[in-house]
Amino acid sequence: MQNTSETTKDVIRPTTPQAIQIAKGLMRTARFAALACISATTQRPNASRVALATDNDGTPLILVSALAPHTASLIAHPHCSLLVGEPGKGDAMAHARITLHCTARQITREHEAYQRLRTRYLSHNPKGALYVDLGDFSFFRLEVDGASLNGGFGKAFNLTTADLICDQNSSAAIAQQESTDIEMLNSTYKDDIRVFVQKYTKNNTTVSPWIISAIDPDGFNLRSNESVERVWFENNATDGSSAKTQIISSLQAL
Amino acid sequence: MQNTSETTKDVIRPTTPQAIQIAKGLMRTARFAALACISATTQRPNASRVALATDNDGTPLILVSALAPHTASLIAHPHCSLLVGEPGKGDAMAHARITLHCTARQITREHEAYQRLRTRYLSHNPKGALYVDLGDFSFFRLEVDGASLNGGFGKAFNLTTADLICDQNSSAAIAQQESTDIEMLNSTYKDDIRVFVQKYTKNNTTVSPWIISAIDPDGFNLRSNESVERVWFENNATDGSSAKTQIISSLQAL
Repeated sequence: MQNTSETTKDVIRPTTPQAIQIAKGLMRTARFAALACISATTQRPNASRVALATDNDGTPLILVSALAPHTASLIAHPHCSLLVGEPGKGDAMAHARITLHCTARQITREHEAYQRLRTRYLSHNPKGALYVDLGDFSFFRLEVDGASLNGGFGKAFNLTTADLICDQNSSAAIAQQESTDIEMLNSTYKDDIRVFVQKYTKNNTTVSPWIISAIDPDGFNLRSNESVERVWFENNATDGSSAKTQIISSLQAL
Repeated sequence: MQNTSETTKDVIRPTTPQAIQIAKGLMRTARFAALACISATTQRPNASRVALATDNDGTPLILVSALAPHTASLIAHPHCSLLVGEPGKGDAMAHARITLHCTARQITREHEAYQRLRTRYLSHNPKGALYVDLGDFSFFRLEVDGASLNGGFGKAFNLTTADLICDQNSSAAIAQQESTDIEMLNSTYKDDIRVFVQKYTKNNTTVSPWIISAIDPDGFNLRSNESVERVWFENNATDGSSAKTQIISSLQAL
């Protein structure tokens, strides 16, 4: 046991593109996560559930109520951690999950990014519309300082901010026309999306139609109710037009 | 926002027997949880997944590897927190979950309770048999100092140790003959268990047979692979015989 930190280093594998994609996939598709923060009242660690989306650059975005103790805690102690990735069947410990090391930054209603984040969040979690506008709710961007990916037994990777977070200029450029592009794509390419999802995913049991719900430098999301599928771009997009071109060619490629 | 802690108090409901049962049910049936601890290396909060069972008194029991950073962290900073309860369909925030405030106590192989905890843990998580005996694995009892139950929007309760943890004498007495009793009950009452589960649960789609997997002062667990159902006693059992009597009458009551 004396040797824990040294041993821990030894079990970390060299980072691969596959590991980064697993990590990003968990972050891009999750609807909720476990937040570890330091309680503002007891100064002890606190684990709570938070509703989750990502900002265009991949930064986790949470919608929280000031009535929940974690909100005051994140303001008092911005260092926090997020566990993302839910187990499926079998041994829970054999399923991939990622521990993100973050610094919380509150985005209140007055912030210039607020409306954009609100739209982005609701496109991923439409049921949040019931309470997003209540006075006690606000967003936090959880800026990623680093991460540990556990891809199952013996598959541990340490990831950096650069591994997980997209270029800021590309993210901002894509964000600027994301809503308009999503609307256009969902209306113009409705049939292509339906056919694509049937071929791309095994997830064709959903009742609601699939729609494009997020566009980012590294790919886009398709969503049907709570089911979310991630599609990755071959090359990172640098603006809305290049993202749109890649989405259309992805949809028509299968 | 200045008023957060006062507002937080206002939304807490008075504790009810139903709230306690929801909380205990989450703890007694969960196979995994999110652990919030303070990193021994960075001193920042860390969220990670842990495999979970309960000790007879209801105290969460986790099996962790010294190769995972949370183990050294729990030794360095025993105050920690556990989030228990997984969301189902729909809005993740509408599903019940409990935040436990805990103090971690390591139970190494040399500890007199180790073999009992090992048996207890594997009865709940049989796939742990693959690694429980590897040299880097050990158990922690996460002694419960208090808890916050969130039963969904606007349903917040603060619970105490006494609300969640069973009497120590009864727990110890039941633990002493738990393995023998489980073996006897599963062999003698095999048919009663089968019929009981069909009537008691909607969970009759499992392929493997259901078995009794845990006996405690406040009830018992039935398990089929990863599916776990909790059955509560009408009156807390004080020893193995009174627990056994109540189990048999429960099985034959439906």
